[in-house]
Amino acid sequence: MRWTRQACVALDADDVLGELRGLFILPEGRIYLDGNSLGPLPAAVPGVLQRVATQEWGEDLISSWNTHEWLQLPQRVGDKIARLVGAGPGELIVTDSTSINLAKVVSAALSLARDRSPHRTEIVSERTNFPSDLYVAEGVVHMAGASLRLVHLDPAGGISAAVSDVVSDDTAVVLLTQVDYRTGRMLDLAEVTAAVHRSGALMVWDLAHSAGAVPVDLHAADADFAVGCGYKYLNGGPGAPSFVWMHPRWAAAARQPLQGWLGHEQPFAFDAGYRPAPGILGFQAGTPPILSLAALECGVDTVLAAEPFGGVAALRAKSTALTSMFIDLVDERCPILRTVSPRSAAERGSQVALTGDVDAYALVQALVDRGVTGDFRAPEVARFGFAPLYIRFVDVWDAVDRLAEVIDSEAWREPRFAQRAPVT
Amino acid sequence: MRWTRQACVALDADDVLGELRGLFILPEGRIYLDGNSLGPLPAAVPGVLQRVATQEWGEDLISSWNTHEWLQLPQRVGDKIARLVGAGPGELIVTDSTSINLAKVVSAALSLARDRSPHRTEIVSERTNFPSDLYVAEGVVHMAGASLRLVHLDPAGGISAAVSDVVSDDTAVVLLTQVDYRTGRMLDLAEVTAAVHRSGALMVWDLAHSAGAVPVDLHAADADFAVGCGYKYLNGGPGAPSFVWMHPRWAAAARQPLQGWLGHEQPFAFDAGYRPAPGILGFQAGTPPILSLAALECGVDTVLAAEPFGGVAALRAKSTALTSMFIDLVDERCPILRTVSPRSAAERGSQVALTGDVDAYALVQALVDRGVTGDFRAPEVARFGFAPLYIRFVDVWDAVDRLAEVIDSEAWREPRFAQRAPVT
Repeated sequence: MRWTRQACVALDADDVLGELRGLFILPEGRIYLDGNSLGPLPAAVPGVLQRVATQEWGEDLISSWNTHEWLQLPQRVGDKIARLVGAGPGELIVTDSTSINLAKVVSAALSLARDRSPHRTEIVSERTNFPSDLYVAEGVVHMAGASLRLVHLDPAGGISAAVSDVVSDDTAVVLLTQVDYRTGRMLDLAEVTAAVHRSGALMVWDLAHSAGAVPVDLHAADADFAVGCGYKYLNGGPGAPSFVWMHPRWAAAARQPLQGWLGHEQPFAFDAGYRPAPGILGFQAGTPPILSLAALECGVDTVLAAEPFGGVAALRAKSTALTSMFIDLVDERCPILRTVSPRSAAERGSQVALTGDVDAYALVQALVDRGVTGDFRAPEVARFGFAPLYIRFVDVWDAVDRLAEVIDSEAWREPRFAQRAPVT
Repeated sequence: MRWTRQACVALDADDVLGELRGLFILPEGRIYLDGNSLGPLPAAVPGVLQRVATQEWGEDLISSWNTHEWLQLPQRVGDKIARLVGAGPGELIVTDSTSINLAKVVSAALSLARDRSPHRTEIVSERTNFPSDLYVAEGVVHMAGASLRLVHLDPAGGISAAVSDVVSDDTAVVLLTQVDYRTGRMLDLAEVTAAVHRSGALMVWDLAHSAGAVPVDLHAADADFAVGCGYKYLNGGPGAPSFVWMHPRWAAAARQPLQGWLGHEQPFAFDAGYRPAPGILGFQAGTPPILSLAALECGVDTVLAAEPFGGVAALRAKSTALTSMFIDLVDERCPILRTVSPRSAAERGSQVALTGDVDAYALVQALVDRGVTGDFRAPEVARFGFAPLYIRFVDVWDAVDRLAEVIDSEAWREPRFAQRAPVT
């Protein structure tokens, strides 16, 4: 169909999720299509930070570990995130950064796989995976005397066949990100996990671009380990701590090498010898960052606020409508641009990547200058995230309107837009 | 001398550091002798958190990584801490938790030592070290196929002799905490490091109970690696991120295994292969936690605020006066208690541990009930920290006054004080 701005306004008026936008403080006059990189500020955060700082830290000081249950905060927020990714209570914890949690789970999965099959010493990942995942895996294999093989998953013959092709008898662990950070390509969690398991390897999922945006059911997929990011679709704030999950079948046997006191069975016994706490609690290490956790809880609560309106399934339906509309409008109004993301909504996360015969970096800067925030990813991709909690259909219309204006006027050629900032 | 309350009030009136107490928001009517566990709230924190949340995160969103220099925050706060521990600019960074940073430096030091002397596969630490340090070392040796030997350093024949006794030709790395978390015993950084180096091993220091409270000069001591805590004497807030330092002589050769994207030479090039950033920047891993870092910067600023008044040397002078007075008064008024900490001020950090024929846990609870906060450490130690930035001489007097009252009235025997909370 041909969209109109009026039709978009009507869609927003009918959107049952529409009122959730009020849970955020959004900058006036800006269309923020970068929530896949940093989610916006939940309206609850300033008040919560004030309370945690002045009352809990300032007034109650050290006793807050008990009286305000600071010590339970990683589990409490973890249990909330668990509801968004198909994990059970007590199975998922918030701690450390995504990179650090990846090191823990890749190491634990490698050990478990080698316990069963000592000859399996290889970790397989995708060459286009988020680089940090590859760096972490490289660090782990270096420590463990294992190897890392990077493959290309060719979706042409079906993803199961592609996985079966690349997983060998040497493979201990497969490490993949469900939604590709550049292209937005989304893998089927259950299908890929099943193919990996058929080959006798363990499956580790990075849910950085999934949690809070697309339906994830870790138990239904029968995954082994997962990590995810707190500051993208979970709106937890810049550098928010990450989450880590382990299937309960590994709870007794798994062991991760970053052994800190909060992962001990009895942290306050101050024993000289390490005895890991049961299950996912043993994936904690140091003292939890309370201010950041308190902000993350507010962010997770914004996603849980969708539960009365259909939850993640409803968010996903709106998200695919938003990204499909964006692709349609770009096709129509910016023919010089090409959609890098899958055109099939079922194979696409909540973001759209564009490229074309333009300087994509300058294009993004010219758009930012006109009140539309996306981001650039090397090489030559302009990336736009559509977080259904606060992005409206009219925002999609207006964003493409300004994109067309930047293309038609060749505004992106202005030299000021080509100057690169440290973070691009 | 025999102290009087009046003499304490006079000392406070003459104390040039006295006005620094105004940098904190302290609970009315409470004497807080637990800043060695969690420093109090700097008065600047609520405003800074408001600004970072509403203006930087809320208004400027993703662009804040550049415009508000979020990306440089770990280095900026690191350079400030460097001034407190005798490190050069650019040598120290704030990232992750103390446990995670310990894993990085112990692993890096072990690799460097084995590069030079492959037969050196042992890490030596003290049996009474903070347990998390031992757990971390245990995890690293497990990954690296090395071994961990726990020793007891007997100070009787001199600390250098004790170190030389326990370090062997097999020792790759010695890992010690300068100020013992229970007893407050303080090691001479330079003397111990020299003894370790004479034996051909590398020296890793945990400065958790040192930084901000006692003079530390890492370069003068010629140490190899150090980590420290942000939420004790640096007043950075509950679970504040930690700092990590490496001597520049190792900058080119050192490699740590927790390789995340922020430790890459060019994080935004998104290369598939890891190339560590030069020096301490390569000890970063994931995205920095901005809210926690902003609070930590306020805390570090409270310590730097002492610089016009003589800096850490002046803080140390006041600290030893406070702890010496506390020990004198306890001797005089609570003869049933015994001081576990060294009686020589030169061998003591900024804290005092007491024990005796009492239930130390209940004793601490009875004191908390009377407005004096200390803490309990298993087995049977009551621990009191004296942070010279905000503790007054009159606080020492009043604290012992209430301690004597609890002892004399046997109030600690009340059953309610024996009930243990999760964090004790």
